[in-house]
Amino acid sequence: MLSELKSEILHEVILRRPDDSHKGNFGRVLLIGGNIQYGGAILMATQATVGSGAGLTTVATDLINLTALRSRTPEAMFVDWRNDEQLTTAIQTNDVILIGPGLGTDEFATQLVRKVLASVNKDQILIADGSALTVMAENNLTFPRDTFTVATPHQMEWARLSGVQLNYQDNHQLNEVQRQILNLDVLVLKQHHTLIYTETEQKQLQIGGAYQATGGMGDVLAGIVAGFAGQFKANATKAVEAAVYAHSAIAQEMAGHSYVVKPTFIADSLPNYMARIQSNL
Amino acid sequence: MLSELKSEILHEVILRRPDDSHKGNFGRVLLIGGNIQYGGAILMATQATVGSGAGLTTVATDLINLTALRSRTPEAMFVDWRNDEQLTTAIQTNDVILIGPGLGTDEFATQLVRKVLASVNKDQILIADGSALTVMAENNLTFPRDTFTVATPHQMEWARLSGVQLNYQDNHQLNEVQRQILNLDVLVLKQHHTLIYTETEQKQLQIGGAYQATGGMGDVLAGIVAGFAGQFKANATKAVEAAVYAHSAIAQEMAGHSYVVKPTFIADSLPNYMARIQSNL
Amino acid sequence: MLSELKSEILHEVILRRPDDSHKGNFGRVLLIGGNIQYGGAILMATQATVGSGAGLTTVATDLINLTALRSRTPEAMFVDWRNDEQLTTAIQTNDVILIGPGLGTDEFATQLVRKVLASVNKDQILIADGSALTVMAENNLTFPRDTFTVATPHQMEWARLSGVQLNYQDNHQLNEVQRQILNLDVLVLKQHHTLIYTETEQKQLQIGGAYQATGGMGDVLAGIVAGFAGQFKANATKAVEAAVYAHSAIAQEMAGHSYVVKPTFIADSLPNYMARIQSNL
Amino acid sequence: MLSELKSEILHEVILRRPDDSHKGNFGRVLLIGGNIQYGGAILMATQATVGSGAGLTTVATDLINLTALRSRTPEAMFVDWRNDEQLTTAIQTNDVILIGPGLGTDEFATQLVRKVLASVNKDQILIADGSALTVMAENNLTFPRDTFTVATPHQMEWARLSGVQLNYQDNHQLNEVQRQILNLDVLVLKQHHTLIYTETEQKQLQIGGAYQATGGMGDVLAGIVAGFAGQFKANATKAVEAAVYAHSAIAQEMAGHSYVVKPTFIADSLPNYMARIQSNL
Repeated sequence: MLSELKSEILHEVILRRPDDSHKGNFGRVLLIGGNIQYGGAILMATQATVGSGAGLTTVATDLINLTALRSRTPEAMFVDWRNDEQLTTAIQTNDVILIGPGLGTDEFATQLVRKVLASVNKDQILIADGSALTVMAENNLTFPRDTFTVATPHQMEWARLSGVQLNYQDNHQLNEVQRQILNLDVLVLKQHHTLIYTETEQKQLQIGGAYQATGGMGDVLAGIVAGFAGQFKANATKAVEAAVYAHSAIAQEMAGHSYVVKPTFIADSLPNYMARIQSNL
Repeated sequence: MLSELKSEILHEVILRRPDDSHKGNFGRVLLIGGNIQYGGAILMATQATVGSGAGLTTVATDLINLTALRSRTPEAMFVDWRNDEQLTTAIQTNDVILIGPGLGTDEFATQLVRKVLASVNKDQILIADGSALTVMAENNLTFPRDTFTVATPHQMEWARLSGVQLNYQDNHQLNEVQRQILNLDVLVLKQHHTLIYTETEQKQLQIGGAYQATGGMGDVLAGIVAGFAGQFKANATKAVEAAVYAHSAIAQEMAGHSYVVKPTFIADSLPNYMARIQSNL
Repeated sequence: MLSELKSEILHEVILRRPDDSHKGNFGRVLLIGGNIQYGGAILMATQATVGSGAGLTTVATDLINLTALRSRTPEAMFVDWRNDEQLTTAIQTNDVILIGPGLGTDEFATQLVRKVLASVNKDQILIADGSALTVMAENNLTFPRDTFTVATPHQMEWARLSGVQLNYQDNHQLNEVQRQILNLDVLVLKQHHTLIYTETEQKQLQIGGAYQATGGMGDVLAGIVAGFAGQFKANATKAVEAAVYAHSAIAQEMAGHSYVVKPTFIADSLPNYMARIQSNL
Repeated sequence: MLSELKSEILHEVILRRPDDSHKGNFGRVLLIGGNIQYGGAILMATQATVGSGAGLTTVATDLINLTALRSRTPEAMFVDWRNDEQLTTAIQTNDVILIGPGLGTDEFATQLVRKVLASVNKDQILIADGSALTVMAENNLTFPRDTFTVATPHQMEWARLSGVQLNYQDNHQLNEVQRQILNLDVLVLKQHHTLIYTETEQKQLQIGGAYQATGGMGDVLAGIVAGFAGQFKANATKAVEAAVYAHSAIAQEMAGHSYVVKPTFIADSLPNYMARIQSNL
């Protein structure tokens, strides 16, 4: 049964932070992506992760993106993704790993996806987005069984990954593929009204609109999902749902004064939006 | 007959986006330009294209501009213009191609102009600006017959391209040169009150002013033209007219509190301005 | 005896500047830090030092950080930290030296820490933060006896440096280690309610909160401490106290509309906050 | 006789732009400066020149500053100052040349100063600031006799250049050195209340304050002087006076809400401030 994803999820998830906490309590998040051609995607995801309040954010990307990353979001730490030792350490020591924004699909990207899928452990959360999903589909890769996993495909990416054309899918079959074959815990299927398939529920977002139809929108969503998963990891499924809701709720609010809502606007608005949720304003 | 380009064009063109649409519906726009000396021009054009709501924006420029591009406008994707394979793919797969801002007029720039003129097809829209027009004039190049083409010259650039000194031109002759010789569908002749020559009409902008007389103003106009052509391609001529009108209307509005209107101000104001048009505010 | 650090410290320290003064009167501040992995830290510290009103700010960092530094804070001058001659001059000619943000702990970082500890003189103020403290702990280094010194460790950094586990420390012992062994004049011990140990007093901050628990928060604090020490050096201890207070007071004010307070927000708010303090608003 | 420089100068100079004008009417301004260590200075000057409304702004600087320049101020064009051919062309084709911000005093800087002093012609305006003045003093260089020249030294720079210790100067002697020996048309002597010595008058600024005492303040002043000289060149002396006045008037206005006024704040406020002057608001 498909139920509506409602704003209550925000109030369940975005709570006042406990007083005696430190940045380690709010998640160590590693973002992997950004080749020379699509590097802006990882920059936008990072901006969203930092804006969402992640405790510590590290970006593993191509060296060519370093200066732009640092110019935009100095809060993030950097790992050269060709430095295997540093990358391995980063994969081992972060709580949440997002792979995909601007990653590309070449041989090196494939290596990275394989490495991450093989390395994550049961205490981590893995989020796969964009080209990471294409790489998985092309190489028949599945998610690791013991790690909590999230995927955020567009419809076409999902069709490739699941091997089922959307028009021929029913929810039951979809759920079976997601769980039995791909080992995927939460599927965020991006479309006009985004769907979220969890183990027990199928929810649909009723907000958002065509003002979001612009490049980078999904990268910011992925960054928020990662940031929320790091911060609110006690209930990772709800954290993902809240991230999806907040992303479109902010966009909808902005659409009143923005014909197109630039993805980076959303990233920058997170602290204020979340403060209002916390205070019930 | 010269008629006035009026604000109604905005309301005809900038309509509410259909609900069930995705970024592919709002145009894939490729911008080509930006050498080491004039690279800021392509950055400003990109900012305008993204701000105007283009679905997906790609920039083919010199590698030296990559970091500044990404620092300013991470929404845009990048193609190294010396990577012939990637550039060819980009030219083939985008709906709208703008060539010119900060391109320069050297041998390599000439190659690029020739390549684009030879490659575009009947389903694409080609916009030529700035040094691309100088290159065309110097090499006696004309626009491809089957593609919808737009040029946005200053008066001197147009004199060079058309081979007719402005003082000696009459509208009839101008139109003949534009259409019979150059194969140009829409001429945007930038001057104090900009002129737009389409197949059937000659319109003049009555707004705007000397607060726009600063470097980069034309680059932002070119970027808006490209963004509107991508988004509102059902009627490309009207899209161009709306772009020209919006550019000066925003500038005029800003002139109340800006002695000189910085081109990047206009680019950043597009989402808000367009939202107000859409809502009739 | 532990007393509360109160807002009065701001009004004691942040006074109207004397009319006939020039930038030399407000301190020459040198910041040393920022390797390839953690370079954002020195950028955030710099932004805070400049925002706090330091007269002249110079940053000695890895060349890879230059463009991001200049893009964000052109007010700061640059020294390539591998240029030993320039670095030596910079250490000799600045009034305040902050070492640590994003410095790392490798061999080169160790060399830099040793060089600074050996070079500073009695007329300078030395502030050690972050990895500089880890380097000192690993190499059993102590502060120079004749220089006014400040350290801004997290609790774990302090445990490593002092050799005393926090749970087993009493204030008396702490004070003894700080003064007799480490030669440290002011200890800013960052925790939920930050402690400041000076020669004569132990004060605790009662403001601030978990909205500050995000990466970079300490770097901005270090930058403010450096900026205040440079500007208000007549009473360096009070300058440090005011810096600590202002940092959390700004964060607390922002927390009303920011779920997480981005460190760079604080840096950017300094001029306005300090103007209000000066005017008793 | 020393008279007060009053706000009337702004209204005399900052007039509504004539309708039928283009960017060429508002000056082609070339800024030369910015080595690796002090490159931020030329970036701040550029931001001020562009903000002040110069028609076309070109920056000749070290290649290492290109990306930061373009990230901050894409409106400016770039010349690699080691490309002698391009630099020569730039010197020949611009109306106003500012040399000095962040230039340094090494052998290469000296070459550049000599080249500029030897190349400018009677139709150009030359402004020398910062290290360009130190280079001139060290090499006993004087200004070209036929070019309208402006210098903007601090007191110490002026003492070095004029060879007269300030304490021993009287106005008459100062004027003689300035005119008879140095061939300098306008001296802007930066101090608590800045002095302006022109051929016929000696004026003193009575506004501004210690909130301006921070690094980069003079670079922004130099940039405004260049921008005003380009735009309002009909009366270059008055243009310089208006620039000096506007710089401190903006700072003074900002000081109400900024303890220290960041130089880049002033640069960014120019369009709005000038619009208010033009409208008598």
